Amino acid sequence: MLSFRNDYSEGAHPSVLHALEAINLEQMPGYGLDRCCQEAADAIRSLCAAPEADIHFLVGGTQVNKTAIAAFLRPYEAAVAAESGHICVHETGAVEQDGHKVLTVPAADGKLTPSLLQGVLDSHSGEHMVLPRLVYLSNTTELGTVYSREELSAISDFCQKNGLLLYCDGARLGAAMAAGDTTFADYASLCDAFTIGGTKNGLLFGEALVIVRPALRTHFRHCMKQQGAILAKGWLLGVQFSAILQNDLYLELARHAKAQADKIRAAFQELGIPCLVDSPSNQIFPVLPLEKAAAFQASCACEVQQKVGDDGLCVRLVTSWATKDSDINALVKLLRAL
Amino acid sequence: MLSFRNDYSEGAHPSVLHALEAINLEQMPGYGLDRCCQEAADAIRSLCAAPEADIHFLVGGTQVNKTAIAAFLRPYEAAVAAESGHICVHETGAVEQDGHKVLTVPAADGKLTPSLLQGVLDSHSGEHMVLPRLVYLSNTTELGTVYSREELSAISDFCQKNGLLLYCDGARLGAAMAAGDTTFADYASLCDAFTIGGTKNGLLFGEALVIVRPALRTHFRHCMKQQGAILAKGWLLGVQFSAILQNDLYLELARHAKAQADKIRAAFQELGIPCLVDSPSNQIFPVLPLEKAAAFQASCACEVQQKVGDDGLCVRLVTSWATKDSDINALVKLLRAL
Amino acid sequence: MLSFRNDYSEGAHPSVLHALEAINLEQMPGYGLDRCCQEAADAIRSLCAAPEADIHFLVGGTQVNKTAIAAFLRPYEAAVAAESGHICVHETGAVEQDGHKVLTVPAADGKLTPSLLQGVLDSHSGEHMVLPRLVYLSNTTELGTVYSREELSAISDFCQKNGLLLYCDGARLGAAMAAGDTTFADYASLCDAFTIGGTKNGLLFGEALVIVRPALRTHFRHCMKQQGAILAKGWLLGVQFSAILQNDLYLELARHAKAQADKIRAAFQELGIPCLVDSPSNQIFPVLPLEKAAAFQASCACEVQQKVGDDGLCVRLVTSWATKDSDINALVKLLRAL
Amino acid sequence: MLSFRNDYSEGAHPSVLHALEAINLEQMPGYGLDRCCQEAADAIRSLCAAPEADIHFLVGGTQVNKTAIAAFLRPYEAAVAAESGHICVHETGAVEQDGHKVLTVPAADGKLTPSLLQGVLDSHSGEHMVLPRLVYLSNTTELGTVYSREELSAISDFCQKNGLLLYCDGARLGAAMAAGDTTFADYASLCDAFTIGGTKNGLLFGEALVIVRPALRTHFRHCMKQQGAILAKGWLLGVQFSAILQNDLYLELARHAKAQADKIRAAFQELGIPCLVDSPSNQIFPVLPLEKAAAFQASCACEVQQKVGDDGLCVRLVTSWATKDSDINALVKLLRAL
Repeated sequence: MLSFRNDYSEGAHPSVLHALEAINLEQMPGYGLDRCCQEAADAIRSLCAAPEADIHFLVGGTQVNKTAIAAFLRPYEAAVAAESGHICVHETGAVEQDGHKVLTVPAADGKLTPSLLQGVLDSHSGEHMVLPRLVYLSNTTELGTVYSREELSAISDFCQKNGLLLYCDGARLGAAMAAGDTTFADYASLCDAFTIGGTKNGLLFGEALVIVRPALRTHFRHCMKQQGAILAKGWLLGVQFSAILQNDLYLELARHAKAQADKIRAAFQELGIPCLVDSPSNQIFPVLPLEKAAAFQASCACEVQQKVGDDGLCVRLVTSWATKDSDINALVKLLRAL
Repeated sequence: MLSFRNDYSEGAHPSVLHALEAINLEQMPGYGLDRCCQEAADAIRSLCAAPEADIHFLVGGTQVNKTAIAAFLRPYEAAVAAESGHICVHETGAVEQDGHKVLTVPAADGKLTPSLLQGVLDSHSGEHMVLPRLVYLSNTTELGTVYSREELSAISDFCQKNGLLLYCDGARLGAAMAAGDTTFADYASLCDAFTIGGTKNGLLFGEALVIVRPALRTHFRHCMKQQGAILAKGWLLGVQFSAILQNDLYLELARHAKAQADKIRAAFQELGIPCLVDSPSNQIFPVLPLEKAAAFQASCACEVQQKVGDDGLCVRLVTSWATKDSDINALVKLLRAL
Repeated sequence: MLSFRNDYSEGAHPSVLHALEAINLEQMPGYGLDRCCQEAADAIRSLCAAPEADIHFLVGGTQVNKTAIAAFLRPYEAAVAAESGHICVHETGAVEQDGHKVLTVPAADGKLTPSLLQGVLDSHSGEHMVLPRLVYLSNTTELGTVYSREELSAISDFCQKNGLLLYCDGARLGAAMAAGDTTFADYASLCDAFTIGGTKNGLLFGEALVIVRPALRTHFRHCMKQQGAILAKGWLLGVQFSAILQNDLYLELARHAKAQADKIRAAFQELGIPCLVDSPSNQIFPVLPLEKAAAFQASCACEVQQKVGDDGLCVRLVTSWATKDSDINALVKLLRAL
Repeated sequence: MLSFRNDYSEGAHPSVLHALEAINLEQMPGYGLDRCCQEAADAIRSLCAAPEADIHFLVGGTQVNKTAIAAFLRPYEAAVAAESGHICVHETGAVEQDGHKVLTVPAADGKLTPSLLQGVLDSHSGEHMVLPRLVYLSNTTELGTVYSREELSAISDFCQKNGLLLYCDGARLGAAMAAGDTTFADYASLCDAFTIGGTKNGLLFGEALVIVRPALRTHFRHCMKQQGAILAKGWLLGVQFSAILQNDLYLELARHAKAQADKIRAAFQELGIPCLVDSPSNQIFPVLPLEKAAAFQASCACEVQQKVGDDGLCVRLVTSWATKDSDINALVKLLRAL
């Protein structure tokens, strides 16, 4: 059966796996204090043009969001996110578990704007309310939409003017860069901290956290350990990131996923099947006629997003670095047959 | 200057103060393990026709909400509340500070319904999302609206069918009973736990928590102590509640506040000034013409609720057990002059 | 029956109660933003010779310890306390509930020393361990012992040299000043924050928190509200503190308690009954012969501290501002009869 | 340079790595809901003779301890551990971060006993103290000592009689089984929950949590997700555990480590160098003469445990599945040369 369920359905890109094999029996110091992590961190600092940034390697996306936000906020401070934000919906209240409210704003396309943020600030004042302090956004968003450099800049400016921290969840940062106009260096110059997702772009696992703002760096490893987020064999993360960041491989894989998604989008357009949201990245949200949906799902594994009206079902299709041309062809054939 | 700022602007009703004076130098055991608290608890159990209920006395409203919700929920469980709910807006994230998400639903009149709750259940499933578990409502609501017995029953039924706990914040329970058709016994039969507010109805301070459901009673005093919510001289709470619950005084004071509010409502109606929401209780939300608002506020202290359109300002006026006829007359006169 | 159970067995000193009565029906703004709290805060700043200090009024001791420590520490930072410290033993893990470890050191007399603190620092390093950050001490201690100005100064110096915050729990600060050589101003000059206990020295309830260090002051009221620790009718605290701090009444009451305790100590000495610890303040810990203990307890209510060897029972006797000469005489008579 | 720093200095045992390679490009459902995790769980249930147990796979040791304890306890409940326990010392207050106190007892050999536990119960009562509820022990302990089946049984009996949960941290469970008389099935019959450590016995990473007691199983995956502890590509854990549990490989690797450690112990004994504690497992704690310590450390990487008296330095040497005979020979030679 076909599957476009997500972009983390396979193990690692072969070059990542080879790097792990090559180092397997070499003795290493634990907890990320090894030369592989050092090298990967240097590579990231260089790509980001952020020679002073602190780089930490964590295993998973919820873990890194939770650890960073808990470390960055004081008890009464809140995060602000789009209603569809990953921390609001799909992390089982991980941020709240560490004591912080997440303030949400509706955003049909999953994207924050200065104007939406201003609304949050306007409605919060005084000690009987939480203090909005950290803006959480994800690029790409959970709806596959993408912030442009200009949009990010506008939010970054707004945050600076209003004493807000800007944190970008880059679980799909590769997808965002492949589908938009941002670069690693843009994130480093516009955000206070952001992540570079590995799990969804060719690694077995791993998210790199880049902390740009000096005040947020203090004792971050204490916070990681307290959250159970320091990997004992930390070099596994450094090795993987070094492998994927070499020779532009990270972006190459992301561009492949984007190109495969573009073919699917073209097929839906040709067939006149609309999408819930106009997403240019590796996530596509077609709204299938309800009477065709079951047949489609029987042949192609994917997530159901939501019902649309009385007779539409929106599903999510995701491509990845591992999506083969044969998968695309089979999908297009399936769609035409329906 | 006139003040209709809130219903906790004065100290205690004289009979409450007298009771405190009478017992002032008597030696008592600490932490609420005294005969006064025992007597007050018995009085509440009797009023509520709930002979098995556990009764605890706490100092304040945020404290009792926070302590109860933290005690009742497991880590991944969430509270559900109307967007205007006190725990969502005006408690500085106290529930989140203890680790729990508060799921909110928009409700123009501040009232939950089974249908709104069903929407929350429909959109939450699986371990990547919090589990909606406790329904928080307040009666009266933060908008002065009142749940009827029938409405409460419908919510209670819904909760029972769906494995949800029902918690009623009764900071203004007197106001709700004075303006609606519910009784103490209704809350005990329909809720798993609820509070009887003292601060806003004649006490110096104090909220009584009634825990009806047996499974929620276990070790609750441990939870109170851990939250810093056991008053050393606990009898101060028992004495006050005993005084206010005698001779129907609690309801009598609430009815006074309601009657005074009715006079204000009549004045607004007569003058053709609309209200933001149709509230029958001791909170009134008139929408003043913007050009008159400043003059009004210069003569009458009150909270600003929100702007309404381009030329309206909604303010909140609150009456209490202590509102004098002369205050009402002065207010009506002021309104007419404007 | 006689009772020396504790120093919070009665209501308020008459002058405190009168102050509350006098203001009872005056309308006041809520949450401590009233002139009474302002006046009391000014009085404290003046007594402490700390014109810049922030003063907050909270209801109870566990509440103020918990709120302050949660506000002052980052997530990975720990408090350090003597094993007998109130936060370690008798607050049901309130500090831990907010996420912070309490590191303990054994101290037979309940008192910390620079040398004991050095031991904690020596055994903590690196990100796999919590970071000792706040030194918690209580004066008087839970064993009735008292830090002298010199001892406090030594600890204060140690803290400054080692980047530690010094927090003094002054639930019995009056007792400490009555039995030792410290003054209000000493605490303000030696501690980063400390409390002035009202509950155990003549108030119905109330602890004043004095925050001296500027960096600890930020948004403290947000932290209070989040902990459910802002009293709605906040002026009740200001009024009481103003009353007790006038005309040296606070110290006068504490000296009375100390004088009464001295008489009890003399009686034990005369009878050859030893004490568990040599406490000069209003708490006395006689070790009764086991065969006499039951008879004693049958006539005099008190807390049992611990067994001592095979045939001793240590109990705790506490005097207060309300302890009458007749109580002392009856106790001495009882002891002689045994 | 030689290294006996720890038992997680290399990657994975070759058969584990091969298993990962074999499955690398196969598409899998995420979050551990795949057939590999299912197979590994079945293998564990079978080894443990616990057909009803729930099995969860997590990445790291601190993570699994933290997640399990937070899931198992109510807010006011505490864990009890030996003073040297991993959760007390080396997890940066991870348990406290989730709100729970860890009560500690001194134990020179790192092992709890019923008598030590009784002491904790005797000193805790009432709502002013936390409620001891979960006994945490590790086998092997942090000092390399090992609980026998009889010792575990005695603790298990004590826990059952006193309403305590028994949790065994099996980060080095293989080492415990290799050096003692316990089996997988013993843990399942004596503990309420325990872990089977992979990180320190041949896996890249991974700890299996076995939850035996039915009441502890509810919604555990919600707790995992909330802690950021569900691995996206969860099958990586299932595949590794399946590989290591086949053909007795898990125990075989542990026995190898133990045999290598025995050779080192023999060398120390022959040279008359004492150990801090008599540990029969893969951790050895020789007390080196202080004047020889620097030379030793210059040639052999290891952790410093503590100073002993004025002229001894205790270091920790750890062997693993990967320790080669040549390493042992070189170490023995080095020791003799010193």
